[in-house]
Amino acid sequence: MKSGLSFLLAAQQCEIRELEQLAATSELVSLLARFTHAVQRERGITNLYLASEGVRFADQRLQQAAECAAIEAQVRERFDGLDTEGHSVRNGARLFSRVAGVLHSLDGLAGVRRSIAAQSVTPKEATTAMVRVISGLLGVVFEAADSATDPEISRSLVALFNFMQGKEFAGQERAFGCAIFAAGRPDAGGVQQWQHLIDSQQACFQVFADFADFQVLEADRASVDLRGLAELERLRRIGFTQADGGRSDGGLAQVWYDCCTRRIDTMRRVEEIQAEYLRALCETKIAQARTELRDQRAMLEALAAQPPAVAGEAPMYGPQLERSILGMVQDQARRLQAMSDELDTVRASLNERKVVERAKGLLMAAQHLTEAEAYKALRQMAMNQNRRVVDVAENVLAMADVLPSRAR
Amino acid sequence: MKSGLSFLLAAQQCEIRELEQLAATSELVSLLARFTHAVQRERGITNLYLASEGVRFADQRLQQAAECAAIEAQVRERFDGLDTEGHSVRNGARLFSRVAGVLHSLDGLAGVRRSIAAQSVTPKEATTAMVRVISGLLGVVFEAADSATDPEISRSLVALFNFMQGKEFAGQERAFGCAIFAAGRPDAGGVQQWQHLIDSQQACFQVFADFADFQVLEADRASVDLRGLAELERLRRIGFTQADGGRSDGGLAQVWYDCCTRRIDTMRRVEEIQAEYLRALCETKIAQARTELRDQRAMLEALAAQPPAVAGEAPMYGPQLERSILGMVQDQARRLQAMSDELDTVRASLNERKVVERAKGLLMAAQHLTEAEAYKALRQMAMNQNRRVVDVAENVLAMADVLPSRAR
Repeated sequence: MKSGLSFLLAAQQCEIRELEQLAATSELVSLLARFTHAVQRERGITNLYLASEGVRFADQRLQQAAECAAIEAQVRERFDGLDTEGHSVRNGARLFSRVAGVLHSLDGLAGVRRSIAAQSVTPKEATTAMVRVISGLLGVVFEAADSATDPEISRSLVALFNFMQGKEFAGQERAFGCAIFAAGRPDAGGVQQWQHLIDSQQACFQVFADFADFQVLEADRASVDLRGLAELERLRRIGFTQADGGRSDGGLAQVWYDCCTRRIDTMRRVEEIQAEYLRALCETKIAQARTELRDQRAMLEALAAQPPAVAGEAPMYGPQLERSILGMVQDQARRLQAMSDELDTVRASLNERKVVERAKGLLMAAQHLTEAEAYKALRQMAMNQNRRVVDVAENVLAMADVLPSRAR
Repeated sequence: MKSGLSFLLAAQQCEIRELEQLAATSELVSLLARFTHAVQRERGITNLYLASEGVRFADQRLQQAAECAAIEAQVRERFDGLDTEGHSVRNGARLFSRVAGVLHSLDGLAGVRRSIAAQSVTPKEATTAMVRVISGLLGVVFEAADSATDPEISRSLVALFNFMQGKEFAGQERAFGCAIFAAGRPDAGGVQQWQHLIDSQQACFQVFADFADFQVLEADRASVDLRGLAELERLRRIGFTQADGGRSDGGLAQVWYDCCTRRIDTMRRVEEIQAEYLRALCETKIAQARTELRDQRAMLEALAAQPPAVAGEAPMYGPQLERSILGMVQDQARRLQAMSDELDTVRASLNERKVVERAKGLLMAAQHLTEAEAYKALRQMAMNQNRRVVDVAENVLAMADVLPSRAR
């Protein structure tokens, strides 16, 4: 029969196993960040390639597609290694479902690449296919952050997720600006949409700043290229107002692209530092938990070696030892409780995204929209009402009962 | 290399495994409900036995202690069967830590029973030891409810947990009333404390009513003994005011005890119905998930059997089949999202208890109190301010920064 003490140790061992699982998940997330960056880059180059009708960037495009394929092979290998048969993956159902979505969109990408080579696809269609892949990858990272059981690692994953999401908005801004500069002059809606992409980046980087560790934030601050930032803002101003007279020779598009690309590449370096921090954090935590387990074991062995105070009175230990065991049990319970509380707090930061996802789902079901259309509808409402998307989403959810729905 | 489809199926299989795990947890919870009832009964009889200085209830007490020991053996066996080595127990660390606490308090109970037999213990001390066991058992049930991954099963576990907690307050009211009737007249603090036990029951049964299934609530309503209820209220009124002139011959204590015991035994039958409902629900859910998996498999096999539309164009399937696969992936993602949302809602109902636990922990750390003292302090503040314990607890947490603390 197992004693209370063996469950005390079992709880500690459980924590170690969960941390090891988190370390594996974090490695996967780092790889997905790398892959996301490669696809973002391919998307940018592809847009320039298609815009120039295949004249420019042909080599770079092939090179970048090959780079993507190489990392994709690693990603697929990592997915293959996931324990789909056992219990070790936390929130397995949700994670595997996300992986299924990513693999499906990756399968579709091969065909899209052929169409790009044949220039039989518009920049918008090519962008859509790659945005779908990236959004799927971000979904996997989101699940990882949402199912982490250690509050510090969860914080770090939330920081990384928001950084990746902010960087993706920066990538979308790059593509959006290229199109505007190529077209010559944005309409009012275009300006609004552009502003929205800027605000979305800000919101993500704010969460990142709230959750990232001090040393990562230092690296982030140190990496900022002020000259580049000034150039970015100047180009944004020109793009918004076409204040230089609306020339559309494509030259500005290239300047814009290069400026954004330098910025995004800098972000990638911060992302790497964040990923490395996460890896080291997992390692430290595991080592720490192992030491605690060893200490606990040693203490319990020392306790067990002492004779019971009154034979038959206390079942195993004397009253004083009894109290130290009670202390250990209470300490563990208190620590786990505190961890769980902090986890709730960290996870609350993911709620905004959940609210938006939920509102999207509602609109999709009630109005038979695709996911992209539902998000566009939310964004449009937010822009029209000059409010945040999450606030509009909350409104939509509050109206759930009066919306006709298939899903509920 | 695994395809997106295999992850689609893996997600479904994961759900089945999680449901099977939940079914096992639910069975454990049912057993713990039965054990809790037995300990409550032993506590009641023990109080009468000690109050009569061993003259009455000696046989019943031995009988009930034997009954408890028999169920305890089953509980320990079930604990032994928990997978402490693998990943299959969700939130293993927290659950095992709770189990360690329960086993520790059970180990202590053996000695307390010997002191009871020797009448070398006060009713209060005996009650404290048994309250500790029951509170530990409720803690395990709480973890089970908090870590359930299916919203319907989670609802059902939340209902059962609150019913058990309400019933425990009813048991504490029984003991409290016995003491008051034996003493003759309550002071103002006693009346307040008694009222608090009544309010706590109400709050728990309200959550139960919010979360239990219709058919269980029907059974609950049908089980109400109106005559017994009227008697209970009459006795409460007498106890509160000693309106019949304050006789304290112990006769009323016996009448009160019997009335409460009938009520608690009726509750036990509702609890059994709730537990049975939970068991059947798990069974239905597992069968349902298995059918879905079979259907999905069949559909995918049918899809795979068809030749690709254009060889080499779509990687595996024609565009129409491609769309049905996308539909399946999206449906699954949406369903999992909806489940996760509902789970959050259900779990929010457990937050009140978490807030109280957190405030207790804070007081324990800041003021070096035991758990019981910390709870008493919270309850006292609530009674003095005529507010709910949870509101006071929230206040305490809001003051966290100004309280000196060891824990943070």
